[in-house]
Amino acid sequence: MIQLAIDTMGGDHAPLVVIQGLALFYKNYPECRFLLYGDQAQIKPLLENQPESLRAVCRIIHTDDVIGPETKPAYALRNLKNASMRLALQAVADQEANGALSAGNTGAYLALSKTILKPLGTIDRPAIASQIPTAKGESVFLDLGGTLQPSSRNLCEYAVMGDAFARRVLGIQRPTVGLLNVGKESTKGSDTLKQAFDILQSSPLNFVGFVEGNDIVSGDVSVIITDGFTGNIALKTAEGVLQLGLSLLKKCFNTSFSGRLVGFLVAPFLRKVRDNFNPSLYNGAIWLGLNGVAVKSHGGTDALGFYHALKMTYDMVNSRVDQAIEEAWSHWTGMLKPIGGPDVE
Amino acid sequence: MIQLAIDTMGGDHAPLVVIQGLALFYKNYPECRFLLYGDQAQIKPLLENQPESLRAVCRIIHTDDVIGPETKPAYALRNLKNASMRLALQAVADQEANGALSAGNTGAYLALSKTILKPLGTIDRPAIASQIPTAKGESVFLDLGGTLQPSSRNLCEYAVMGDAFARRVLGIQRPTVGLLNVGKESTKGSDTLKQAFDILQSSPLNFVGFVEGNDIVSGDVSVIITDGFTGNIALKTAEGVLQLGLSLLKKCFNTSFSGRLVGFLVAPFLRKVRDNFNPSLYNGAIWLGLNGVAVKSHGGTDALGFYHALKMTYDMVNSRVDQAIEEAWSHWTGMLKPIGGPDVE
Repeated sequence: MIQLAIDTMGGDHAPLVVIQGLALFYKNYPECRFLLYGDQAQIKPLLENQPESLRAVCRIIHTDDVIGPETKPAYALRNLKNASMRLALQAVADQEANGALSAGNTGAYLALSKTILKPLGTIDRPAIASQIPTAKGESVFLDLGGTLQPSSRNLCEYAVMGDAFARRVLGIQRPTVGLLNVGKESTKGSDTLKQAFDILQSSPLNFVGFVEGNDIVSGDVSVIITDGFTGNIALKTAEGVLQLGLSLLKKCFNTSFSGRLVGFLVAPFLRKVRDNFNPSLYNGAIWLGLNGVAVKSHGGTDALGFYHALKMTYDMVNSRVDQAIEEAWSHWTGMLKPIGGPDVE
Repeated sequence: MIQLAIDTMGGDHAPLVVIQGLALFYKNYPECRFLLYGDQAQIKPLLENQPESLRAVCRIIHTDDVIGPETKPAYALRNLKNASMRLALQAVADQEANGALSAGNTGAYLALSKTILKPLGTIDRPAIASQIPTAKGESVFLDLGGTLQPSSRNLCEYAVMGDAFARRVLGIQRPTVGLLNVGKESTKGSDTLKQAFDILQSSPLNFVGFVEGNDIVSGDVSVIITDGFTGNIALKTAEGVLQLGLSLLKKCFNTSFSGRLVGFLVAPFLRKVRDNFNPSLYNGAIWLGLNGVAVKSHGGTDALGFYHALKMTYDMVNSRVDQAIEEAWSHWTGMLKPIGGPDVE
């Protein structure tokens, strides 16, 4: 049995969207059980609108502490010991739940995840990862903001974690791994990148070398590794361009009568393209490299988005990505020895 | 009279595309004159197909030295003293030409530009900038790879240079300037970013603070400043997403008969959207912060793209962006004094 710990208070439309997403999820995964952390007075009436069978697999754990979107991570860590997202993570640490999910404050959730779940084995820096829709199926992109200036050793950790995710969750047998840089030539980029390149080159991973920004969505590479600063900005740039393209197209259709007619005919096709990138379908940033599963839903998501974040939490639990990371990383201790063991910078 | 120095040997389809682009440009700017650097045996026959009036304003300066796409910048700098792109830049330094343009090796062209034209006044790091099409007109984005790890002082230089470009070339009266970061809060990002934020905050620029990846194309900010690593990757990510969106849409139309019919009707609208972002229209990366105008055309461009790069070179010469940068930057010497003068890191 899989039991998921859900922060019901996080996100712009909590707890309504959380319960709606949960109801959708329960229809497809009736074998799961749920621990719901938050304000009982708000959660209970929402649950009462749901079928009896769903209510039977939910347990509400009441708490008054809530971490708001503006709460500083350090403050949350020190002072909000009963915050709903913290209790959800604690349930995973205590092995009461198999995985935690929150749509709340990203910085606080990441800091709490690291403190409560702790990094896996000798992993130095857990990372934030996301599935990316590409021209040829899905890829995984990390880090998206966990560590703004990672060391070369951290980049190697990301490669191992991304590879494990691609194998276990995306089902890719031998994923290709690329390191994001300003050019494909091995002489490009910072010393940190060059050192990571050399280590990855001699590793058992299917490393294809440096890749460029356009490769993030080309689908030619399954795992794209970068520092958290660049990853965060590249992802948001991609979202911005997609939105702009769709809104320009709409504007073109609306400038003439024939345009409106064509716009009407083309709408279902546009929807198909948009759905390919629908943020709701790709909702669920994944914390990789922790002792236990923690997934972060987008704060502004809808019920379908929360459903997909729950599905990602379930997939992470079910596919044992953490186990795969631990197994793979244990071989690196020896590999990194010549340049100073697993703690090498 | 404006005289432009053109490296005719750089780029994938040189010198053919160069001469074709030049012919297009000459039709609109018949008052210009051109110095053409490269292999006379290749250039001459191409020019002979052009009108007598164009030939009359062109002077071929023959050279055998060519910098290939794989030539290392350091090697080019040391050994290829008569390379076509070098001679073009030298013509600008010697005030024989008002601006230089090349579609050749970017790294070599940048290194040569810095060596031959030299940074403007007390500017420490010249930058690579590009116009960006957005939802609300054009903006300017820099640095795109000139300096991978700039100091906070360098970021301030970029802000001054981007502002000057936006005023003089884009014609924006009081451009808004944003600093790219992983969040809008002033507590986010590296110390370098935070220091640049503080300086820009108290500067005479219309600084709007930190902006995020999606703001690059939103059009809400006219000048977007970032380090060369992030800038290069964000730009290529944007290009990749645009290409992917268009190719997915095409694929949707081609899966059914009704789809093909709608695809036929929608083609002109799609072209409009694509043209909004047409790389040929936005061809011409601009070196900002040098003593003299140097523009870089994309190596794989077509004649229309080379035309636009020539137009950008002309606009840069005509609008005296360098003068505007020098004037604005001279005020910063005093402004940066409290934290150690213009050489502060």
